[in-house]
Amino acid sequence: MRRPLPSVEQFVKGIRASDRVLLGQAITLVESAREDHQVLAREIIAHLLADTPAINTLRIAVTGAPGVGKSTFVEALGMYLVEQGKHPAVLAIDPSSAVSGGSILGDKTRMERLSASEHAFIRPSPAGDSLGGVARKTREAILLVEAAGFDTVIIETVGVGQSEIAAQRMTDLFLLLLLPGAGDELQGIKRGIVEMADLLVVNKADGDRIKLANQARGHYLNATHLLPVKPSGWQPRVMVCSALENSGITDLWDAISAFQNDLLANGFFAENRRQQARYWLEDSIEAGLKTMFYNHPAVKEKLAEVEAAVLAGQMSPTDAAARLLGVVNWGS
Amino acid sequence: MRRPLPSVEQFVKGIRASDRVLLGQAITLVESAREDHQVLAREIIAHLLADTPAINTLRIAVTGAPGVGKSTFVEALGMYLVEQGKHPAVLAIDPSSAVSGGSILGDKTRMERLSASEHAFIRPSPAGDSLGGVARKTREAILLVEAAGFDTVIIETVGVGQSEIAAQRMTDLFLLLLLPGAGDELQGIKRGIVEMADLLVVNKADGDRIKLANQARGHYLNATHLLPVKPSGWQPRVMVCSALENSGITDLWDAISAFQNDLLANGFFAENRRQQARYWLEDSIEAGLKTMFYNHPAVKEKLAEVEAAVLAGQMSPTDAAARLLGVVNWGS
Repeated sequence: MRRPLPSVEQFVKGIRASDRVLLGQAITLVESAREDHQVLAREIIAHLLADTPAINTLRIAVTGAPGVGKSTFVEALGMYLVEQGKHPAVLAIDPSSAVSGGSILGDKTRMERLSASEHAFIRPSPAGDSLGGVARKTREAILLVEAAGFDTVIIETVGVGQSEIAAQRMTDLFLLLLLPGAGDELQGIKRGIVEMADLLVVNKADGDRIKLANQARGHYLNATHLLPVKPSGWQPRVMVCSALENSGITDLWDAISAFQNDLLANGFFAENRRQQARYWLEDSIEAGLKTMFYNHPAVKEKLAEVEAAVLAGQMSPTDAAARLLGVVNWGS
Repeated sequence: MRRPLPSVEQFVKGIRASDRVLLGQAITLVESAREDHQVLAREIIAHLLADTPAINTLRIAVTGAPGVGKSTFVEALGMYLVEQGKHPAVLAIDPSSAVSGGSILGDKTRMERLSASEHAFIRPSPAGDSLGGVARKTREAILLVEAAGFDTVIIETVGVGQSEIAAQRMTDLFLLLLLPGAGDELQGIKRGIVEMADLLVVNKADGDRIKLANQARGHYLNATHLLPVKPSGWQPRVMVCSALENSGITDLWDAISAFQNDLLANGFFAENRRQQARYWLEDSIEAGLKTMFYNHPAVKEKLAEVEAAVLAGQMSPTDAAARLLGVVNWGS
């Protein structure tokens, strides 16, 4: 016999006390496809949000092409934060993990020290059949880890697709990891990603690669100066570091802190979080509307017939949509 | 006193008889924000689709950066088609026209000869506050002009944004116009647009620019050979032309015909139209669901309060969406 789930009160109390087992279970509820699990997860989060001062947390997106050393970098940054008395949590957005089976954080042994730290929390990317679903789950997980007292949330993404945009929409700071000695085209970085970055960090600046790393820094520094000024007023910085040798991490954290202080002072930090909340509200409504609509019995009954007429070119999509929407009996 | 609108029967009969005044009025109904106009437009299209063999038409997207000579090119191609006994219609997707007031086809005098032809039809981009809305209107306009007997529909876009993707989703062939002697970065062409093209046409291959145009052709020929094979199996062709001197248009039309014949033969032409119809059905449903939801009295009443709680960080977007969706009384 399976043990019954803890109650909402037990979850809320446990998470507030930083109980990792209950925190992990709550995230599992968020990730579950079961309706009763989702209802329970929403209740837990609703209780927790009532008194979580989320603005005191910092959410950082970390991205970069495969091979740039993201895991080593996140571990080095995370361990530095632990040494400073902070509590980092690492989450991921990787919609490909559902397909490939290999999640970017699935192999926790890649962050052995950070995994072992009692002050840190690491959670692999949830499985999901769409980026939207994965992104919504990650976003709820942020709220849970923050309620459990983790003050710095790092969202790792794979750096080659749309997941960066989702990550940017749930974080305060966008950090792009780069390799020494290769242009962004060679690194497989999509156009637009460099423009999104608040901090560009050339990793692997060690051994023979220090000179190349500094050249790359100069290249990206020029590039960022050509970009339009960001709405936040922040001028992106370009830094070098070696996550392997643990060099440059202190300077990096100073830059991150300067970013946070500037944006808290000019009001953009709070304004950005409000905009993000509005975006996620609209996104959740859209997803919910579609689920309700396509699961509606009358729609299910009519959809195949109407779709066939549209595919045969005998009915316009607009007309078909109007007919299907008409069978939904909205109370008004 | 304003004259009453023609009846559905009058519209249907008139459009089938290629009455341009009634065709133009029907497109105006499609573009109207008024609900009664939209209902009438849907009825007209429903009647027309019952016996319009849409597969016998060809829909061509034409895009390229500002300054590439799109209007001159479209006029040259359109006039060539008229000479071949065809009936071209030119529509546009330009969401910026609503903002700037200057539509890409707004000034019909730029296509003076084609405008004057009794075998052609030109319609500027509809105004609209969103790309989605403008795209849906253009898509309905395609159905109307085809029902009126126009067999080759050219969709012009501005070439610098998301409107190319919308144009690709409603056309059979994607044609990208290029300038001689400038890389695609300099031309302001977004990454991904070159990959979308079935035909790349270097325009302005005249006078001193013939050599540059041929160099550009070689450059793009190399680029297209590096791209993955398209789902249609079609190998993109790169051509040169001068719309101004009317050279290269015959070769271009031969390539367009080869494209159409190949894809009709391998079944991709019909399959692509079915996929597009499915996409537009989903898009129309999504747009309709949102309109119904945000206009629902109970949602209107609750939205401000719930949104404020979300923006203040006191309610999760997922929870807020669930609450708002809960007030909609779906019959089931």
